[in-house]
Amino acid sequence: MSAPKVQLLLTGNELMTGDIVDSNSAMMAQVLKDIGLGINRKVTVADDLALLVSEITYMASTSDILIINGGLGPTVDDLTAQALALAIEEELSQHPQALTHLTNWCQQRGAELNGPNLKQAILPKNCQIIANKNGSAVGFSVRYNQCDIYCTPGVPHELETMLIEQIIPAISADLPSELITDVTRLQIFGLGESSLQKIINEQLPQWPTTIDLGFRAGMPLLEVKLTTNTKKGLALKSIWQKKLANVLGDHLIAEIQEKPKSLAEHLLIQLQQHNLKVTTAESCTGGLIASKLTKVSGSSTNFEAGFVTYSNEMKTAMLDVPSDLLEQYGAVSEQVVVAMARGSLVKSAADITIAVSGIAGPNGGTEEKPVGTVWLAWGSINNIKTQCLLLPYKRVKFQEFVAAIGLDLLRRYQQNITSIPNYIIERSFTEQ
Amino acid sequence: MSAPKVQLLLTGNELMTGDIVDSNSAMMAQVLKDIGLGINRKVTVADDLALLVSEITYMASTSDILIINGGLGPTVDDLTAQALALAIEEELSQHPQALTHLTNWCQQRGAELNGPNLKQAILPKNCQIIANKNGSAVGFSVRYNQCDIYCTPGVPHELETMLIEQIIPAISADLPSELITDVTRLQIFGLGESSLQKIINEQLPQWPTTIDLGFRAGMPLLEVKLTTNTKKGLALKSIWQKKLANVLGDHLIAEIQEKPKSLAEHLLIQLQQHNLKVTTAESCTGGLIASKLTKVSGSSTNFEAGFVTYSNEMKTAMLDVPSDLLEQYGAVSEQVVVAMARGSLVKSAADITIAVSGIAGPNGGTEEKPVGTVWLAWGSINNIKTQCLLLPYKRVKFQEFVAAIGLDLLRRYQQNITSIPNYIIERSFTEQ
Repeated sequence: MSAPKVQLLLTGNELMTGDIVDSNSAMMAQVLKDIGLGINRKVTVADDLALLVSEITYMASTSDILIINGGLGPTVDDLTAQALALAIEEELSQHPQALTHLTNWCQQRGAELNGPNLKQAILPKNCQIIANKNGSAVGFSVRYNQCDIYCTPGVPHELETMLIEQIIPAISADLPSELITDVTRLQIFGLGESSLQKIINEQLPQWPTTIDLGFRAGMPLLEVKLTTNTKKGLALKSIWQKKLANVLGDHLIAEIQEKPKSLAEHLLIQLQQHNLKVTTAESCTGGLIASKLTKVSGSSTNFEAGFVTYSNEMKTAMLDVPSDLLEQYGAVSEQVVVAMARGSLVKSAADITIAVSGIAGPNGGTEEKPVGTVWLAWGSINNIKTQCLLLPYKRVKFQEFVAAIGLDLLRRYQQNITSIPNYIIERSFTEQ
Repeated sequence: MSAPKVQLLLTGNELMTGDIVDSNSAMMAQVLKDIGLGINRKVTVADDLALLVSEITYMASTSDILIINGGLGPTVDDLTAQALALAIEEELSQHPQALTHLTNWCQQRGAELNGPNLKQAILPKNCQIIANKNGSAVGFSVRYNQCDIYCTPGVPHELETMLIEQIIPAISADLPSELITDVTRLQIFGLGESSLQKIINEQLPQWPTTIDLGFRAGMPLLEVKLTTNTKKGLALKSIWQKKLANVLGDHLIAEIQEKPKSLAEHLLIQLQQHNLKVTTAESCTGGLIASKLTKVSGSSTNFEAGFVTYSNEMKTAMLDVPSDLLEQYGAVSEQVVVAMARGSLVKSAADITIAVSGIAGPNGGTEEKPVGTVWLAWGSINNIKTQCLLLPYKRVKFQEFVAAIGLDLLRRYQQNITSIPNYIIERSFTEQ
């Protein structure tokens, strides 16, 4: 028995106008691949009832599984339920389970259940509800013409939770048992996609064809996925995974079990284990590192304060950076960033710190210190390390990278890793 | 005469596996929009000859313009020329102009014109060549069944140059002269999609059908788009846009000209005009507000420092919040958030501030102050305003909303807006 044919139907005017780039279908492809399924065909249309009805009718007749994404919202241009009802010749009616969900959703938020919201409970009769933890729109599914049709919300995190927790388990329960799939995902920081591909080509040229290697460039972590669909691949996997881990060295952050963790989470877990507190002294990242740490729930155990010292005066006022250092060396200098690090440790009584001062651009660069220059200082009061980097990114991406590198340097410090990360080898900068 | 129907056919295994996100079609939509054309329907398939032939056949019969993207490369899985030839029942033959291009291309690079490259010159007989400045694959077009079919390369910058320099001029030369397109985008903060739909339904029930209303839920700003393709719509637009603006009130942030601005950008522009400095005192948002401000280039003119005071001790150490206030009222209280606001103004010498203290969760809630409670204080030293809200969002979304609301409250303060925003009406909270 062969794998079922899967098709996707995406709906939304915003997908047709180029206002947004569709990332949902790539995500759906990734999670379907985890259970050994590929997507056969994908159609995207605007919010147009006649077009939707004809697409659904045709796609349901040429696939085993049809996933419809988008068009579940409360506004008049959300047409999925109506189109599906017409396509499968079923009436629309108020679904009690969907109504309960909407009522609870509004109640929890102290909001009135209004007409537009109520529309989200009007669904094809006899459909199965797919719960939505994260939004007002429930998903729903019907079986029609030997095709399982799943209707899902367009909001990415609502879709993702629904897929992983409900749709994928439902689909895989129906899969023929001889289909096997084994997926391992690795989190990497400090190696780009093309560097990594080159390293693998050179150092692991015999990589077995039965283990599919996929890359997913995230910001800032890169994800590498080893997928195998054969017994032979499964047998070979652990040895090749070990070889790959060897080659990655300290750039390998973790093997992802369930939900991938951020750099800040990895760091906070270590700090928790050692009962240590961290602080931040930020100039060019303007609070981004502190904000990444405090996104993590429970971070208050290991983070008490952060200093956003954007101007020279405030570096002195908040962190006691001597003003003569600022005058003599400038704000973007080893001397100042070390003083910021020291000041933040003294003022916060934290155990370790990360201090950054750089030129995010687009203005403010000079010949000696061009846009993209950043000084970092990190460590504990008796052991402060420093590094200057030149990062070839525009403002927002520059800030994201400095924040990520800052967190990674603390992770390495905390784990006593002495090898030099790739981003220092590649981006190390000596002022002109 | 109405606008021609445009469809896109994208081909490539990498588009189906989720390994890459398709950005080409958004780019195509943008450049087509510039000449008043929308994309009607978009189909994506893997590199499969039979599937490609059937898609091309069907799409050519249901559109006036069909753009095929991808599948022009030298490898065996590049099948566009072959599929098109089969679909339009035309022979394949070596195209002299394509051969010249390939010969020159290889010569300039000192490379041998090999078999796989030569395949790129085998095209449907009588097709028109579209030159490719940036790559080895020429594009080509044919007219079949009243449909203009353009075949384009998958590499984004090759596609873009070809589109802008050749395909778009060719298409627009054929367009009826009476076609018009007018798009206006409005930025809104503080009204959700369903509230907005309800308001429009109730207060503007006669909304003209000639003006298309589109919503795009962003985080945190909502975008509303008015599009019209008719002279009647254009004539009606300014009056209905004014009516809509009236209904939106102070929730309308701006009419988007080119690139939409963030809440922080809007605020910083106002501060610049009045030569004022802003600071931040953040507990539950942990640096997020400061980071949003400093993302904006040039923000250093109006932002010198931010205080991330996560623990009680650090609220006292950094902002002089009296410890008896913390003991008596708790960190999430009007008294403490006002003291934070004052402290931040005194310590930074800024003109205005936003201070926030709340319970982001998932832990730390009590009966009187459940998870989602937040106290905000904002304004200048002699005029500090306060508000308590209960926001029904999980940690990260809670932080995003508090940050956005903080920035919006400063915008309203700065503009002397006295009307009460919807989020205060809906989410105002009095401790139990």
